[in-house]
Amino acid sequence: MGIRKHKSVKESFTTMTELVLPNDTNTLNNLMGGRLMHWLDIVSAITAQKHSNRIVVTASVDNISFKQGIKLGNVITMEAQVTRAFNTSMEVHVNVWAEDIPSGTKMKSNEAFLTFVALDQDGKPVDVPEAIPETDEENSLYEGALRRRQLRLVLAGRMKPHEAKELKSIFNLEEQLPE
Amino acid sequence: MGIRKHKSVKESFTTMTELVLPNDTNTLNNLMGGRLMHWLDIVSAITAQKHSNRIVVTASVDNISFKQGIKLGNVITMEAQVTRAFNTSMEVHVNVWAEDIPSGTKMKSNEAFLTFVALDQDGKPVDVPEAIPETDEENSLYEGALRRRQLRLVLAGRMKPHEAKELKSIFNLEEQLPE
Amino acid sequence: MGIRKHKSVKESFTTMTELVLPNDTNTLNNLMGGRLMHWLDIVSAITAQKHSNRIVVTASVDNISFKQGIKLGNVITMEAQVTRAFNTSMEVHVNVWAEDIPSGTKMKSNEAFLTFVALDQDGKPVDVPEAIPETDEENSLYEGALRRRQLRLVLAGRMKPHEAKELKSIFNLEEQLPE
Amino acid sequence: MGIRKHKSVKESFTTMTELVLPNDTNTLNNLMGGRLMHWLDIVSAITAQKHSNRIVVTASVDNISFKQGIKLGNVITMEAQVTRAFNTSMEVHVNVWAEDIPSGTKMKSNEAFLTFVALDQDGKPVDVPEAIPETDEENSLYEGALRRRQLRLVLAGRMKPHEAKELKSIFNLEEQLPE
Amino acid sequence: MGIRKHKSVKESFTTMTELVLPNDTNTLNNLMGGRLMHWLDIVSAITAQKHSNRIVVTASVDNISFKQGIKLGNVITMEAQVTRAFNTSMEVHVNVWAEDIPSGTKMKSNEAFLTFVALDQDGKPVDVPEAIPETDEENSLYEGALRRRQLRLVLAGRMKPHEAKELKSIFNLEEQLPE
Amino acid sequence: MGIRKHKSVKESFTTMTELVLPNDTNTLNNLMGGRLMHWLDIVSAITAQKHSNRIVVTASVDNISFKQGIKLGNVITMEAQVTRAFNTSMEVHVNVWAEDIPSGTKMKSNEAFLTFVALDQDGKPVDVPEAIPETDEENSLYEGALRRRQLRLVLAGRMKPHEAKELKSIFNLEEQLPE
Repeated sequence: MGIRKHKSVKESFTTMTELVLPNDTNTLNNLMGGRLMHWLDIVSAITAQKHSNRIVVTASVDNISFKQGIKLGNVITMEAQVTRAFNTSMEVHVNVWAEDIPSGTKMKSNEAFLTFVALDQDGKPVDVPEAIPETDEENSLYEGALRRRQLRLVLAGRMKPHEAKELKSIFNLEEQLPE
Repeated sequence: MGIRKHKSVKESFTTMTELVLPNDTNTLNNLMGGRLMHWLDIVSAITAQKHSNRIVVTASVDNISFKQGIKLGNVITMEAQVTRAFNTSMEVHVNVWAEDIPSGTKMKSNEAFLTFVALDQDGKPVDVPEAIPETDEENSLYEGALRRRQLRLVLAGRMKPHEAKELKSIFNLEEQLPE
Repeated sequence: MGIRKHKSVKESFTTMTELVLPNDTNTLNNLMGGRLMHWLDIVSAITAQKHSNRIVVTASVDNISFKQGIKLGNVITMEAQVTRAFNTSMEVHVNVWAEDIPSGTKMKSNEAFLTFVALDQDGKPVDVPEAIPETDEENSLYEGALRRRQLRLVLAGRMKPHEAKELKSIFNLEEQLPE
Repeated sequence: MGIRKHKSVKESFTTMTELVLPNDTNTLNNLMGGRLMHWLDIVSAITAQKHSNRIVVTASVDNISFKQGIKLGNVITMEAQVTRAFNTSMEVHVNVWAEDIPSGTKMKSNEAFLTFVALDQDGKPVDVPEAIPETDEENSLYEGALRRRQLRLVLAGRMKPHEAKELKSIFNLEEQLPE
Repeated sequence: MGIRKHKSVKESFTTMTELVLPNDTNTLNNLMGGRLMHWLDIVSAITAQKHSNRIVVTASVDNISFKQGIKLGNVITMEAQVTRAFNTSMEVHVNVWAEDIPSGTKMKSNEAFLTFVALDQDGKPVDVPEAIPETDEENSLYEGALRRRQLRLVLAGRMKPHEAKELKSIFNLEEQLPE
Repeated sequence: MGIRKHKSVKESFTTMTELVLPNDTNTLNNLMGGRLMHWLDIVSAITAQKHSNRIVVTASVDNISFKQGIKLGNVITMEAQVTRAFNTSMEVHVNVWAEDIPSGTKMKSNEAFLTFVALDQDGKPVDVPEAIPETDEENSLYEGALRRRQLRLVLAGRMKPHEAKELKSIFNLEEQLPE
């Protein structure tokens, strides 16, 4: 498994800003979801590159839901940070804000989790440094990463639901309470 | 709620083909995940438009995982079809194949579920026709749609896990079996 | 001339779907002809690749006429198939439909013939499999391919008009009839 | 038919220069034909706009053949000029050169004819000025325009071959000579 | 002149991150200067929008020089901030870094000053808030803004050199010193 | 320093035409400055390539000011020519016109100076031919090139203001006149 380094999650922090242009919108002038996903993938890939100092490829994108208020001319701000590393892969968390600057409105529009695998020059997966959380929010994202990873593995058919101990606890806890 | 029409899911079937160009790839010549997500959103939006005869906006994209073999020059084929309609929203299923034509290799690279909301000319959600499955595969996707919808609602914090009856059954069933 | 394989024309069938975005249109919101030609070239190149399992380059595009009704937001569907192979080149036929989905209108907008040459890894032309038509329509396109090829050669100055026997028959037949 | 103005064909002369970028090429680094057609359409549309002082739409593109030597990094020069006007439509001629500047090679790569229709603000066809040729080359292109127009009409099924008098003469002349 | 508000320059701070893709580079795989200028204009326009809460248009870009080390796959980080406001216009300062993440090198690649004019919905210039510097660096940029503005006016032929008092002092000061 | 050739500046003359498309404009339908700068860089790079028969990289762009009247659908014409060569670098001058063809208005919109460095295949600067001006205008641009070069060096901190003799004369001449 080789030598593992440690890096604080903060070191991977990346901000990306985009302006919603005509070709990014549908005929109601709403930003198309696919365009936002394209940007999320780029900012997250840069974040994972910063953590690993490697070329990275997208391994998965978690469920993303879209609110319907991002319009032509809005400014999109994305803030991304690695939450946790697992051998050769990293989970990245992104917050997305949409801002209509002339009217002075700004709203949190999305939140997303993407995972990346680090590759060497021959395209083989390589180990990445451990990601060390420091703040409360970073610790909370770090803790949740295990649960989200189990959900990904179950959804990909690579883990049996009854083995997903972290995940199961969410679904069992409440059902045991009197309803 | 107004008059509801019925349409077979087959009527929404849409195929989209894309060629992986240099700007779609990273420095290892692999297709970037975000570019594929952009295409998935477009083919699925067209599919949802065909079912509803309305302008549509992306409401959510389910967890997608990526295999690492799509290269520059590959041909991507996406086949999308509505699986089920829920009042003003529709779930769309997409199969993705990647083909290296000169070498004669073709592989199933991804599968994705996206949901869309139909809008009228003022941008307000409107009812869509019911989607009627006909084949075994269509029926299986139709049945699963309820479970995937509950997972989306739980992940979005809009449904409590213990209320997600369809979903819970997956996680409980197997743990009650003798292991 | 080497070993020649046979392939049915059906095996090369390719569908491509595109959404007309703002940058594809002029100031009257009509799809620009050049954008459609760009898409026609891509779908036809993929079709010729499928038939030949080779990298291909465009050799010629036949006369295309444009109807004036494709608007912003329309969905373009292209269906392409090889019609006939000639040593190292293939003719591809494309049907184009334009659909205004919210208003439920769909029209046949164009038909086009493009020819491609198959190349090996050094960029030298290589033989391609014969293309075998099966249906009546495929047979009719196969027969016409010879005539269209002669027209291309005459227009390119590489065949004398009086040598274009297939072609000449069109122009002579009717003039010999009493008018 | 309204008042007709006269303009020399020279007034519509337009030059466009493009640099072949990675996304314009296939995996052998050859310029894709569709990209060149896209550029041809834009330069010709500007030319037809200059002649008519109107918004224009592409009506047809004549047969184009491609030589196989345009590479990544080449500079493409297109020179376009109206050849002749017919009521509401104009034929445009384009010469295309490809230049590999570091190696000092420049070749004539294509020649193309496109026709455009002039539209008023409601999208209805409107008359355009007559196009007056002045040089020998302009006169020759002006003369040939009638023959090319008949070929377009025959190919579009809007003129019977035996009515295409200008066109027929090409195919008959030589066959009457002793072979 | 109407009511003037005050805003700290910090409030306009904007970060933009871009990944250098194949189409952004020349045949030596160096980022083309024009692509970087395109990004500089977008990040600066967003910055000026944030300060003014208005739609803005670029009024000028000061001399920019380019170092020759930005390569395909590099990550470009731009940090922009308003330096000073003048009635209806704002000067924006941008720092640009280029980072080769796999090799762990990061260099300051450019610095640029752009000015923008704020417009109302009819496209007429409108007053913007005063920009208040707080740190030493912000004060230094604020002071220099007057000198840079005079240089712009002299270069645009809208101010006579001998009237540019701030600017002249730079060129005179040193020549009066014993050399 | 090797053998130096001579070339007339006229040989590098290059015209580029662009159509302002939706994605090139802001929400008031004005061409964004950054898009124009991108085009200026491409036409100037081609011009410098023609003069030097080398791959070139942008070294600097002089101050550019923008008038506010370029709209969606306008045709942009750029005419570029080398003004003077300095060992391994060349200064290029570009004139920009914006034309609203349907309304028949054409205006000079910008003027710009960019400098490029010629590179060999290893990316090292190489000498370029001397540029020989012939007309009065070419001579005037040739003379001014020295002054502009000094301004660039002073602005880049690579020349002290009191050493910029050509430049200083502009600022001193008039101040010695009685005011």
